[in-house]
Amino acid sequence: MSDQKTAEKHNAALMEKIVSLCKRRGFIFQSSEIYGGLNGCWDYGPLGTELKRNVKEYWWRKHVQTRDDIVGLDGAILTHREVLKSSGHLGGFSDALVDCRTCKGRFRADNLEGLQCPKKPSCVPGGHGECDLTEPREFNLMFQTRMGASSDENDENAVAYLRPETAQSIFVQFKNVLETSRVKLPFGIAQIGKSFRNEINPRNFTFRSREFEQMEIEFFCKPEDGLRLTDEWLEERLKFYEEIGIPREHLHILDVPDGDRAFYSKKTYDIEYEFPFGIQELEGVAYRTDYDLTVHGKGSGKPIEYYDDETKERFVPHVVEPSAGCDRTILALICEAYDEETVTDEKGKEETRIVMRFHPRIAPIKVGIFPLLKNKPELVAKAREVQAMLSPMMNVFYDESAAIGRRYRRQDEVGTPYGVTIDFDTLGENGDELKDTVTVRERDSMSQQRMKIADLPAFLLTKIH
Amino acid sequence: MSDQKTAEKHNAALMEKIVSLCKRRGFIFQSSEIYGGLNGCWDYGPLGTELKRNVKEYWWRKHVQTRDDIVGLDGAILTHREVLKSSGHLGGFSDALVDCRTCKGRFRADNLEGLQCPKKPSCVPGGHGECDLTEPREFNLMFQTRMGASSDENDENAVAYLRPETAQSIFVQFKNVLETSRVKLPFGIAQIGKSFRNEINPRNFTFRSREFEQMEIEFFCKPEDGLRLTDEWLEERLKFYEEIGIPREHLHILDVPDGDRAFYSKKTYDIEYEFPFGIQELEGVAYRTDYDLTVHGKGSGKPIEYYDDETKERFVPHVVEPSAGCDRTILALICEAYDEETVTDEKGKEETRIVMRFHPRIAPIKVGIFPLLKNKPELVAKAREVQAMLSPMMNVFYDESAAIGRRYRRQDEVGTPYGVTIDFDTLGENGDELKDTVTVRERDSMSQQRMKIADLPAFLLTKIH
Repeated sequence: MSDQKTAEKHNAALMEKIVSLCKRRGFIFQSSEIYGGLNGCWDYGPLGTELKRNVKEYWWRKHVQTRDDIVGLDGAILTHREVLKSSGHLGGFSDALVDCRTCKGRFRADNLEGLQCPKKPSCVPGGHGECDLTEPREFNLMFQTRMGASSDENDENAVAYLRPETAQSIFVQFKNVLETSRVKLPFGIAQIGKSFRNEINPRNFTFRSREFEQMEIEFFCKPEDGLRLTDEWLEERLKFYEEIGIPREHLHILDVPDGDRAFYSKKTYDIEYEFPFGIQELEGVAYRTDYDLTVHGKGSGKPIEYYDDETKERFVPHVVEPSAGCDRTILALICEAYDEETVTDEKGKEETRIVMRFHPRIAPIKVGIFPLLKNKPELVAKAREVQAMLSPMMNVFYDESAAIGRRYRRQDEVGTPYGVTIDFDTLGENGDELKDTVTVRERDSMSQQRMKIADLPAFLLTKIH
Repeated sequence: MSDQKTAEKHNAALMEKIVSLCKRRGFIFQSSEIYGGLNGCWDYGPLGTELKRNVKEYWWRKHVQTRDDIVGLDGAILTHREVLKSSGHLGGFSDALVDCRTCKGRFRADNLEGLQCPKKPSCVPGGHGECDLTEPREFNLMFQTRMGASSDENDENAVAYLRPETAQSIFVQFKNVLETSRVKLPFGIAQIGKSFRNEINPRNFTFRSREFEQMEIEFFCKPEDGLRLTDEWLEERLKFYEEIGIPREHLHILDVPDGDRAFYSKKTYDIEYEFPFGIQELEGVAYRTDYDLTVHGKGSGKPIEYYDDETKERFVPHVVEPSAGCDRTILALICEAYDEETVTDEKGKEETRIVMRFHPRIAPIKVGIFPLLKNKPELVAKAREVQAMLSPMMNVFYDESAAIGRRYRRQDEVGTPYGVTIDFDTLGENGDELKDTVTVRERDSMSQQRMKIADLPAFLLTKIH
């Protein structure tokens, strides 16, 4: 086998292991699974939910809470058709599709090569089989629904859409935010929320899904600052990924060339990650000029402008948009964290340790709490005390069943960075010196240190903050 | 005017003031407003977003993080039609509507009295005008959409729905959670997320909207524990409302009588709040027996059961559901917090102080930071230092413009519980004793105390946690 083939096979196997672990340990389940699944939709299980919460929380803390030039917004998913008409989504947000006159299948026109017709596997669209294809037709990627009780099926005003991106409500509410929040240029509006795209071909686990969550900032500025701020935001966002555990050397920066960018964008960077299935985009940092505010000003008939107190000028602000895919970030974190290593147990036997090397900041569980034995009430009581002390501050997991080594392994597999074991030393059975101390075991190095219970909060909080 | 009429007028005026403040200070905006608005949809502005985040965060911390018998889930909004067929939503989740043959208007059959036709105001549906009504027809309240690229308009498999409640994905994923999370009965699965209902008549600001967020727990248990746990959950949830600032005496508990409950429910409590527009439901605490898991077991052809290690029995768990409306809770908090009082300023002039008396735990901004004068660089620098120290821990707002009294008022109006003023004493100009101390002003009492800067974090964190 060629090196490339070997690598592909390795990566496909790796991806299978990751998907399997996600299901087995409750990170991610297929949506509506017991009914056969809903293509392109996913449910986050208990650990996935915590992981996602931590990522969103850190994003918000870094970009909104600790800055005084960015405020939040939480807009509706259901969106007025006029908003999407102005933004261009109603007209242009589409894929070219071809229909097969024989089998009635529908395929992406730009993606026919090597495709097998799912309805008639013997048939290969694109001329190599029976498939008799129509000319390509544009297929809008937005999910459409009807709102209200209009009895007129053709009533256009009853049509609404699920937003294809969170950005539009930010532009549409720009004036309201400006008038109510005492912000001055440059300033940003941030939003985290669900968006929807009717992908023809959802694939690569949660990477290309039909329902997904975005973390977007629209950073408004004077026209002359746009290019500089785009570079600054690229740097700021790269730091974010590093701070949650994706090293810069696993990220690629694509400076999107002229012609590949949206026509209104003067500069766009794609931040890409080396997934096992290829190098794929996590985030776009785009300098969108004054396009968005201008089209909504025109579309609504209410010009959207900014008045500069100092220069006495009135103008349409420009905008830089760092737009990150939250689910893609989660998937990158899971891929990045996944590791297998060969370790030797106490009896000298070699075994494979699966360990999720999540950064403590985003790990779903921060610390496992283990009484050495479950049939010693004093150990259990002390362990429960430690749990009660820590759980208001962080996510903890109490586990008393099975040998201690096995309990460590279970937490390794879900990426819990620390384990605290309560033993007879803790109870003071081996002298006052060791009383009220515990063993703290570190996930990655598996090294252990003795620590006072009273010192645990400060030690752990510093690591996870 | 009768007492009742006077009260109604007062309450309508109060509600108008609340809606106006929400718009003016950036709590809540009408969705797609510059395009005429999208009926029944709302966008949370900067302060509303923070308020909502705080409420959701506290709910999660109290019910998921600090307990080890409840885990989280974050399911997709798009839902397989078979899920909703089994749950009964596809068949029964509807309102009876009548159409008018003359004006083509559509109205809720149970709500005709006093209604004016919006299309022909001279016409009163229900027989008193020209309106010529059809017999009532059932109108499903779920939003429907089409998924995938099926070219067959009648392809039922291409139909998906926006979930009408977050609960269903919890039931559908019960088995996956059980198998991956090492939970034992009784245990709960919690979810916060958006749900959608195509309300015929959205009303009362954000109270009855078409897109809304829920905070739901499905607490699974043995059949014999259902009734007791329902009472315990009622109490637990009442405590939650108290802890975020809604006193128990403003809540009403409705023990829903036989006949008014869902047919499968053995007990249901509604927790209601005294809104200015009437006493309305915030949350239902329902003992739903084994209905949900049973219908999904049958519907999917995969029985959903629990095996009890101790009794060696296999059975369908029962469930108690505390299901809270997040947006309704936010609206209740805003109504509860709103207050006007007459105060006398330094010059002896009377004025009206509008103050939002939010509990510090959920207030959007925790502390305002004010240099006494903005043209003294030392004051500004010191104030910025205090801001930099506090902002990693909590939401702060820095304000240097206008007289200090006016800055206090602005923060009163958005419910910021504390104000910190940096003055010449802080700089040490009046002796070492006062150096590095600030004035901390409390919103509700307007009382002031002198405090060391170093003591601020502990003081504030205790109040807001």
